[in-house]
Amino acid sequence: MNAYLDNSATTKPCEKAVRKAFYLASDCYGNPSSLHAIGYEAKKELDASRRAVADFLGVSENEIYFTSGGTASNMTAIIGAASAKKREGKKIITSRIEHPSVIKNFELLGEQGFTPVFLEPDRNGKISLDELYSAVDENTILVSLMAVNNEVGSIQEFEKVKQVIKAKKSNALYHCDAVQAFGKIKINPSKAGIDLMSMSAHKIHGLKGSGALYVNKNVRIRPAIVGGGQESGLVSGTEAMPSLCAFGEAVKDIGDINENLKKVKSVRDFFLDKISSLDYVFVNSPSDALPYILNISIEGVPSQVMLNSLSAEGVYVSAGSACSKGHRSNILSSMKIEPARIDTAIRVSLSKYTEKEEIDMLFDGIVKTANRIRR
Amino acid sequence: MNAYLDNSATTKPCEKAVRKAFYLASDCYGNPSSLHAIGYEAKKELDASRRAVADFLGVSENEIYFTSGGTASNMTAIIGAASAKKREGKKIITSRIEHPSVIKNFELLGEQGFTPVFLEPDRNGKISLDELYSAVDENTILVSLMAVNNEVGSIQEFEKVKQVIKAKKSNALYHCDAVQAFGKIKINPSKAGIDLMSMSAHKIHGLKGSGALYVNKNVRIRPAIVGGGQESGLVSGTEAMPSLCAFGEAVKDIGDINENLKKVKSVRDFFLDKISSLDYVFVNSPSDALPYILNISIEGVPSQVMLNSLSAEGVYVSAGSACSKGHRSNILSSMKIEPARIDTAIRVSLSKYTEKEEIDMLFDGIVKTANRIRR
Repeated sequence: MNAYLDNSATTKPCEKAVRKAFYLASDCYGNPSSLHAIGYEAKKELDASRRAVADFLGVSENEIYFTSGGTASNMTAIIGAASAKKREGKKIITSRIEHPSVIKNFELLGEQGFTPVFLEPDRNGKISLDELYSAVDENTILVSLMAVNNEVGSIQEFEKVKQVIKAKKSNALYHCDAVQAFGKIKINPSKAGIDLMSMSAHKIHGLKGSGALYVNKNVRIRPAIVGGGQESGLVSGTEAMPSLCAFGEAVKDIGDINENLKKVKSVRDFFLDKISSLDYVFVNSPSDALPYILNISIEGVPSQVMLNSLSAEGVYVSAGSACSKGHRSNILSSMKIEPARIDTAIRVSLSKYTEKEEIDMLFDGIVKTANRIRR
Repeated sequence: MNAYLDNSATTKPCEKAVRKAFYLASDCYGNPSSLHAIGYEAKKELDASRRAVADFLGVSENEIYFTSGGTASNMTAIIGAASAKKREGKKIITSRIEHPSVIKNFELLGEQGFTPVFLEPDRNGKISLDELYSAVDENTILVSLMAVNNEVGSIQEFEKVKQVIKAKKSNALYHCDAVQAFGKIKINPSKAGIDLMSMSAHKIHGLKGSGALYVNKNVRIRPAIVGGGQESGLVSGTEAMPSLCAFGEAVKDIGDINENLKKVKSVRDFFLDKISSLDYVFVNSPSDALPYILNISIEGVPSQVMLNSLSAEGVYVSAGSACSKGHRSNILSSMKIEPARIDTAIRVSLSKYTEKEEIDMLFDGIVKTANRIRR
């Protein structure tokens, strides 16, 4: 038995998603832009998947644009919003705890004459709405803040961001990177005042290579990826059909968000309870974090040593995000966590399928490794 | 029996590709950036696919960068080259017969202070090297010309482009969009002097949502899609594993390019022979076009009428490219083909699997439709 506890890096696709992808690859192989029966059949599948995502969010199908994944969604939102509104102002606001695909696009825009502002999180990995309020001004055209942080699981006040923007009488667009939140906590983008929202399929038991961007129907942005004009002109490139159509199946398979959350919380609490007996283990995630993500430090055991040792036991966790690949986490640094803690941090990320037996394996692996390395 | 003759829009994935994608989705689901056994296993598969593409082209694995498809490859090459060389000059040269993902990125760069030049094709859909020679100057930083045109199949002198650039003592990079050529004619990018070359998996019986960009090892471009730094930092975003790993299988399944070409040519010639008896059918493709693509016009029968009628008979062709979706073809227009011919044009695109029986169905469908509509 293995314990796959790296679900924030990627998840195992669910059976229904795999089956749909297989059908699209082997039978329904048309190009959805083709104006013949084989094309129409493919388009019908794509539309059904779009409907599943839209229904899940309680929005209109016309507000869902498919992309090749979270990174393409973030790029489309950020570059698209900045290009559309560049004549209205130059200030764009985000935070230090965003995914690299947000931060690097902000830096890129910085080179192109925009003024990026990076808000710092507090010790709990949260962005203060007061600081956001101070930062927003008449020159601000975009605010990009995530819903749930990918390394520590801190839940942001994403439902209040637009209110803050409006309180400053700003017309800035609000982009929410919901890659880690989508399917795990309830988000109704239109109620939450979200203008643009990024999602990724492979974080919710879909396949890698697909994602979506919600664009509120009253919002116009410019395409960042240009060409054949797919996705109503917003995201060009032949659609990644097998994986995009599987996305809809994965979404339909999410089930009851609250039930899932309850189960994941009980598994996470089971783990917290076990490690509370170990005086060399520290919890970096805030106590009110999304239970799917738990960041801890094991004093005296460098992250990669722990990862390797656990991997040898069939237990799979990460040090920070998969994207940061061995670099010291910027997110933990920005939370002002001590370097010694950062260098010994691991991220345990659960899914609704995670069982307590896997937690037992993780716990045993941590204790065994710590006893070996720390003595 | 159906006749799928729209292989330049997309192809039916081969069995090996589908099987590999299925394995990646259902079993080998790790994130290749993850630093544990599940991640390493996924990375091994990705590397094997990369090696298959590199071996097929006779280049080094380090010169192959995976993307989400032809559009992302073209974008990465064009935006990446222009950003890397913007201090050396502003002139960028392409042609009117390129794919929209090339043309639109050139237009975008035009808005950003670059000077795009669009060469016109001759009546045979070919770009003149003399005109290229005249256009290249000391200010030129990029030449982007396709190898094979997607609508008429005209083969460009892609092996001489770099010589022309060098003859003008220019350091311009040469990007070749080889989406329609890859796997169908022999291309050795380093011998041909190609600096950057775009490929797509779903045009060669791979899955939609994956492609590659060849980047000569001596060439440095800037990433256009930024974020987690995947693909050595050039193309960010979690890799579309099922479809990218299937890409390698599709490449290994190409077989003997010359044998395939011989077979496709005999099928194409069989069709040409049959339609030579119809005085209302005109061939728009040049006689030395790649046999995989044949563009014809059926006098008096609007393209979409013919498409619908053929589709009802189980015969699937296109009017121009899938991406142009019902708009009058820019490519045929730029070839100075008469409007009445353009409006009655259809593209028949073959694969190595196309059989003469399918051509019989196509021919019968054309005659039947023409007899009904033209009387």
